[in-house]
Amino acid sequence: MAAAPAKTRVAIVGATGYTAYELCRILLWHPHVEITVATTRQEDEPVLSEIHPSLRHLLDLNCTVLDPADLAQKADVVFTCLPHTASMAVIPTLLSEGLKVIDLSADYRLTDPEVYETWYGHVHTDPTRLGVVSYGLPELYRDRIKGQSLIANPGCYTSTSILGLAPLLAARKIEPKGICIDGKSGVSGAGRSPKMNTLYPECNESVSPYSVGNHRHTPEIDQVLTEISQQSVETIFTPHLIPMDRGLMCSIYARPTGACTQQELLTIMREFYAKEPFIRVIDALPRTRDVADTNFCDMTVRVSRGIVQVFSCLDNLIKGASGVAVQNFNLICGYEETLGLLPQK
Amino acid sequence: MAAAPAKTRVAIVGATGYTAYELCRILLWHPHVEITVATTRQEDEPVLSEIHPSLRHLLDLNCTVLDPADLAQKADVVFTCLPHTASMAVIPTLLSEGLKVIDLSADYRLTDPEVYETWYGHVHTDPTRLGVVSYGLPELYRDRIKGQSLIANPGCYTSTSILGLAPLLAARKIEPKGICIDGKSGVSGAGRSPKMNTLYPECNESVSPYSVGNHRHTPEIDQVLTEISQQSVETIFTPHLIPMDRGLMCSIYARPTGACTQQELLTIMREFYAKEPFIRVIDALPRTRDVADTNFCDMTVRVSRGIVQVFSCLDNLIKGASGVAVQNFNLICGYEETLGLLPQK
Amino acid sequence: MAAAPAKTRVAIVGATGYTAYELCRILLWHPHVEITVATTRQEDEPVLSEIHPSLRHLLDLNCTVLDPADLAQKADVVFTCLPHTASMAVIPTLLSEGLKVIDLSADYRLTDPEVYETWYGHVHTDPTRLGVVSYGLPELYRDRIKGQSLIANPGCYTSTSILGLAPLLAARKIEPKGICIDGKSGVSGAGRSPKMNTLYPECNESVSPYSVGNHRHTPEIDQVLTEISQQSVETIFTPHLIPMDRGLMCSIYARPTGACTQQELLTIMREFYAKEPFIRVIDALPRTRDVADTNFCDMTVRVSRGIVQVFSCLDNLIKGASGVAVQNFNLICGYEETLGLLPQK
Amino acid sequence: MAAAPAKTRVAIVGATGYTAYELCRILLWHPHVEITVATTRQEDEPVLSEIHPSLRHLLDLNCTVLDPADLAQKADVVFTCLPHTASMAVIPTLLSEGLKVIDLSADYRLTDPEVYETWYGHVHTDPTRLGVVSYGLPELYRDRIKGQSLIANPGCYTSTSILGLAPLLAARKIEPKGICIDGKSGVSGAGRSPKMNTLYPECNESVSPYSVGNHRHTPEIDQVLTEISQQSVETIFTPHLIPMDRGLMCSIYARPTGACTQQELLTIMREFYAKEPFIRVIDALPRTRDVADTNFCDMTVRVSRGIVQVFSCLDNLIKGASGVAVQNFNLICGYEETLGLLPQK
Repeated sequence: MAAAPAKTRVAIVGATGYTAYELCRILLWHPHVEITVATTRQEDEPVLSEIHPSLRHLLDLNCTVLDPADLAQKADVVFTCLPHTASMAVIPTLLSEGLKVIDLSADYRLTDPEVYETWYGHVHTDPTRLGVVSYGLPELYRDRIKGQSLIANPGCYTSTSILGLAPLLAARKIEPKGICIDGKSGVSGAGRSPKMNTLYPECNESVSPYSVGNHRHTPEIDQVLTEISQQSVETIFTPHLIPMDRGLMCSIYARPTGACTQQELLTIMREFYAKEPFIRVIDALPRTRDVADTNFCDMTVRVSRGIVQVFSCLDNLIKGASGVAVQNFNLICGYEETLGLLPQK
Repeated sequence: MAAAPAKTRVAIVGATGYTAYELCRILLWHPHVEITVATTRQEDEPVLSEIHPSLRHLLDLNCTVLDPADLAQKADVVFTCLPHTASMAVIPTLLSEGLKVIDLSADYRLTDPEVYETWYGHVHTDPTRLGVVSYGLPELYRDRIKGQSLIANPGCYTSTSILGLAPLLAARKIEPKGICIDGKSGVSGAGRSPKMNTLYPECNESVSPYSVGNHRHTPEIDQVLTEISQQSVETIFTPHLIPMDRGLMCSIYARPTGACTQQELLTIMREFYAKEPFIRVIDALPRTRDVADTNFCDMTVRVSRGIVQVFSCLDNLIKGASGVAVQNFNLICGYEETLGLLPQK
Repeated sequence: MAAAPAKTRVAIVGATGYTAYELCRILLWHPHVEITVATTRQEDEPVLSEIHPSLRHLLDLNCTVLDPADLAQKADVVFTCLPHTASMAVIPTLLSEGLKVIDLSADYRLTDPEVYETWYGHVHTDPTRLGVVSYGLPELYRDRIKGQSLIANPGCYTSTSILGLAPLLAARKIEPKGICIDGKSGVSGAGRSPKMNTLYPECNESVSPYSVGNHRHTPEIDQVLTEISQQSVETIFTPHLIPMDRGLMCSIYARPTGACTQQELLTIMREFYAKEPFIRVIDALPRTRDVADTNFCDMTVRVSRGIVQVFSCLDNLIKGASGVAVQNFNLICGYEETLGLLPQK
Repeated sequence: MAAAPAKTRVAIVGATGYTAYELCRILLWHPHVEITVATTRQEDEPVLSEIHPSLRHLLDLNCTVLDPADLAQKADVVFTCLPHTASMAVIPTLLSEGLKVIDLSADYRLTDPEVYETWYGHVHTDPTRLGVVSYGLPELYRDRIKGQSLIANPGCYTSTSILGLAPLLAARKIEPKGICIDGKSGVSGAGRSPKMNTLYPECNESVSPYSVGNHRHTPEIDQVLTEISQQSVETIFTPHLIPMDRGLMCSIYARPTGACTQQELLTIMREFYAKEPFIRVIDALPRTRDVADTNFCDMTVRVSRGIVQVFSCLDNLIKGASGVAVQNFNLICGYEETLGLLPQK
């Protein structure tokens, strides 16, 4: 394999949101990255650090309106931080311009265009790529990701759930149906567009479930777990909004397939992730605070009264979005996977 | 039955904590209550409004050290807001002095002294009263509570769980075993004693499970639900601490006993509580914000992929502690149950 | 004076915001009030408790679109919770229909239409009422409020600042110019309309000044303090947004007119408010937490290195808006001023 | 000057608190640092990552009890994160062992032992070093810091205030007396020891002033500003606790010495810090959110009605403590000052 380039030029498409901001924050520390383009739909070409004032003095780049041909002159890899449907409208062009793309939207995550249409309410306009695109969860699909030109970066609840469940499902230790995932997410997961339900006085001092029975991460969770464990997995995914900026905890309830001990399951989990730099299987109960601002996913397992409980948590903006996107970036560019995400000593 | 007295004198024993404060706040608006005594272990007899500055100008009472005989001269009803074991050490004396007692601790909630010893790690010193004392959940035990002299006021997670599950268990619509209760509580539930894990910078911006598999509200939930549904109920109760002051949500996962629809279960729930002033069975998904500072318990039910989900929430300090204590107070004194808790129009 | 009516019918015009909600919550406990009308601009006439789910079972009223003639049939007193300019567009008609009006907007607070135009950017369309309307701060203008048909309910920063400064300015103990008011408010003060800067992830974990040098409460503060102290008062008002729902603290810095002691100033403050039920002059430093959900304004004074410091705080939605509106309501209707706001024992 | 060493071994003395944690987090990314020792007073030698679970997999070091001679074998530079008085008890020994020390306590910040005794209530036990030790604010004292063996790392409110005021005082644009500093700090500034007033339910949803007229950062602010501006500076410093983890804003009110415009003052400020990598003088009003988790201090200036207002903010744990400590570390070791704190591209 050829050596990775000394410098890779990166474009952020859709630079106004929280995941784009986190990407910038991470990539600024990456020794081989230069951010050369940031795009928005705003015609007045605002300075990026006006949109994200934390970036002042660090990244004083003017945002431009997306122009794929121009972008292909200025960048090698593109992170698309667009709403679903907007991503698939532009990605085919970006690819045909020779760019590599890491897509943070949901557009290329599902393998079946009909499932996409059912859950997202839109016909998929680039259906031939579905099922071909690599799903960007390196802990499960590292080899498929390396060297690809388009990566479907996973959802935040999805990664938390899948990473927590994969070892026990792969080992056939829990039943694949009736798995209840109780998700709890900070508000940044809802994005930066003004909506009444994410106003401070609406979600502060409150916890509430939402999208019960119909959250779009459900088919994504099931699809990946089904593939990884080679059996039909069906989860009941129930997200809750809780009053914090960032952090996501999935408390998962499953029935064991047979007699099992906590220690045995913990060992399975630990061995499954033995070589993974970003998975910390711990004895203690995890707290989202301990993974905040990191690319770690912390998890543990308990057995209570015949029920297996997995607790898995991560930072929804980092390991749940922009951090894993940088893992994918490193993999497709041939860099050490942890660059920009862990101290390199 | 004799008419309720025009004025009832009330003592708060253990007045420094959050539940004692909420009691004061509620009772100040109760037309038939005069708070005459507040006790603490502090020898310097602080003014109550120095401990709870919100009460300035409203309740400028000097706290005293508990003296049962003196207290019997000055009060008719006592609310004991003491830690477990401290309650059972004093309640027999208070009762023998002729006082009525509503105990907010856990000491009289369980019916079996061995279960108490197992979960609380102390021998029960007043075991003959266990199983005789009325459990103070008026929605289930109103008739047993009326006129009693000692009430075991229920725990906050307990009431949220029991109220949410009782209709479906009583109707035999869900399996009595393997019920998973995912609890999420504000930090005030952990009390007012300084501890590192409830410092602001430890629990802000974080969510974490705790006491998994061994939280003391577990046997209380099971005991009451077993009795109310006449079958052996076993729950897996998993509490989480979330960054807010007050509010408690239980998201409950159960398997149906047979085919059922969401609408059918909602109707059962609604009919079960048709006459209850403090239970609001709603179509929408509940938010703890909407029950904060009220004595309401909001709940609904969903059926997702063959799993029954109940969402039940309340204010842990009010309906979960001091509000239900005032319901019990009204019942044992012969007042209208909603006095002090709902506008009387 | 005639006896106050046993029942007063109340309309809330502009019922979707936070101040309207707090009004409902307070008025539900008022023994002489019946809320008969709630209006919104929404044509589909939503149930009020869908907009404010806390009100379920308490106030299940259908909202209507404002119709002054119809409203005059159904209500006696109107609370207008409208944005500025919208209030003055409708209030003349409401008054001509014989209704009494308490206006929570800023439209009738300033006495000079040119000042209004300068600060609000709109020509005042009802200028002849300016300067005639009573300013609804009962602690200063109780006698002018009684029996009036239109009251200009004060702003939240305004009341906090004025109440804190009035005693010392009236006693000529501090210089009337160069008074620096550092205001700190919870986010509910910014209203319930979706805006990016009040999204949870924008204002959580952050403090920032805003509207420095041009906040619209400035002329209102100066106008009232000038009148009350009979000298030209000029303040530098600097608001800050802090991450909490409700609560407002003004930390005020002023130069003394001559030698003075802290104790002397505290005595002046205490005597000024000796008979006021809602002002608590305290020795300790106040916390907004202690006035939350109450109609109290807590304050104290310090002298540090030749500078006089006043700390004044209240709940921005209650004493800063809807609670003082109920004080005004009681005064114009002839009820006891504290009804609905303090326990009546 | 000799080249800086390729690797410097670092010890953290007093490793359980928040500033120690932030030091670890920063130093892990420093290319020339190896953390070799962490000490606590706990005899059981806990693993550091049990105390700070975020550090799991990153720094799995066993804490030891402080032994200066042993420490001198294992480390080159020591960061002392001890309470005041504990620092001066150990630092002379550390220095005599040949170690370099950056002291995060207040023990060596003041130049006059009597002032220390007055404000800290203890006799200073190492008085001959006072006034000799370099004060570790690199923006003002860079040349004095380089190559030193003991640095007094500044307080958080202190740095925020001094950095905001130094340009205008040095240029004689504001009066040196009567400067009012209204400080607003997140709760992590109060440390990690359990105290009732920093419990989540006590400081959440509340803002309050504290230590008015007697906060220990006052003499430190005055001392440094007096020296830097060569005139006797006297500030009125008034801190407030606000409900957030981290972030510190000082809103400062001063009288101009003569006519001045906002633009003129902004230019003075900008030129004063023209070469400073960590000071961002901005046109907009700053937010603490934009400096959170960074070593930046953001500031601006306004003139309102004849009063000069400076708004200066930083992250209290980083630029206010551990970040500036790393600047000092780099300076005394001969590394590039921004190493570990800014991306090096």
